[in-house]
Amino acid sequence: MLQNLEKIELSPSTLLSPVPVVLVSCRGREGSDNEKANLITLAWAGTVCSEPPMVSISVRKSRYSHRQITETGEFVINLVNEDLLQATDFCGVKSGQDIDKFTECHLTAVPAAGLSRAPAVAESPLCLSCQVKQVIPLGSHDCFIAEIIAVEAAASLMDRQKRLRLDKAQLVAYNHGNYYSLGEALGFFGYSVASEAVLAQRMRVLRALKPPKSGR
Amino acid sequence: MLQNLEKIELSPSTLLSPVPVVLVSCRGREGSDNEKANLITLAWAGTVCSEPPMVSISVRKSRYSHRQITETGEFVINLVNEDLLQATDFCGVKSGQDIDKFTECHLTAVPAAGLSRAPAVAESPLCLSCQVKQVIPLGSHDCFIAEIIAVEAAASLMDRQKRLRLDKAQLVAYNHGNYYSLGEALGFFGYSVASEAVLAQRMRVLRALKPPKSGR
Repeated sequence: MLQNLEKIELSPSTLLSPVPVVLVSCRGREGSDNEKANLITLAWAGTVCSEPPMVSISVRKSRYSHRQITETGEFVINLVNEDLLQATDFCGVKSGQDIDKFTECHLTAVPAAGLSRAPAVAESPLCLSCQVKQVIPLGSHDCFIAEIIAVEAAASLMDRQKRLRLDKAQLVAYNHGNYYSLGEALGFFGYSVASEAVLAQRMRVLRALKPPKSGR
Repeated sequence: MLQNLEKIELSPSTLLSPVPVVLVSCRGREGSDNEKANLITLAWAGTVCSEPPMVSISVRKSRYSHRQITETGEFVINLVNEDLLQATDFCGVKSGQDIDKFTECHLTAVPAAGLSRAPAVAESPLCLSCQVKQVIPLGSHDCFIAEIIAVEAAASLMDRQKRLRLDKAQLVAYNHGNYYSLGEALGFFGYSVASEAVLAQRMRVLRALKPPKSGR
């Protein structure tokens, strides 16, 4: 492991990578100027707590969606698969103030489990209903820390034992300005200390799980 | 896009995916009980602000590294490539209280740019020096919000124009308990609204960038 030892210093920047890319859906208060169902694409998102399950998303204060989420304290994180990527990229460069992103992207806003205002994206493989607990102003972005109060998954992602098979969802990762599919399964949590028998068996299962390439 | 419309509800859990997997390095105050250089593996990490560049990491209060980061307000996020994955997994299942993880994993602790206590991992392709600004208690985890005050990248990742080529780093993503390589380049930020000429040219470059498979 000597190839990385020589380093050069770069200016500080947001180089944590890979990061998720998600479609966040939201809607302002009923009767307010911001009541339209809306979508925003974010890569500044992360899990921040296990019990209770919590996430953070960071949104620029100038964004239309920022006003909507602030009004209702609700949003939905819709995971992005390869089929949703073009719409997701589009929602990252356009403002919901000017257009109806659901209509423009041929996506379907449906009620989200546990929430009263923010819709979910029907076409997403997995939707996390989130309730804002804290808003932390950080400079260009406000960080919304939220509890995941409900989860809805595509029925097609459940196996016969009714276990979620997120490996089949063809999720997309974001790496330094580009979107990538997930590639080879390299291991499972704990594989470095697994017995040889367990390792061989679980890696065989893991590699067999990889869905066939979409052929794009 | 009709295949995913049927949904089932699952219990709330931390299903944001894919997420980064990183090796965080830290060290307690000089002369304290926690002064040993240490490593912790985290998937609960995310970018939270662009200006200034900021990240969050969430750590269980019971962790040895939690005490260390609390003492000094410093840590380094070391990005994980395929070569580092086995050590990374190992550091996720063992406690630094019991062992010296750097020695155990044959990794090299080096001074981190801009920090006085937390070391960087020499073998990592990219190291983010972080200074804690806020600690937010959230339940099982405390969320450390930190500014990225320096970045060091492997010299081998810079191209002839001295641009960082993170696509060559063979970074690893974490998806629902498993580690994955990054696969096919699917697009660049803004590709959905790019002109046909720009799209064709940039996608050609992007696809050509993909490093040859490591042959594992």
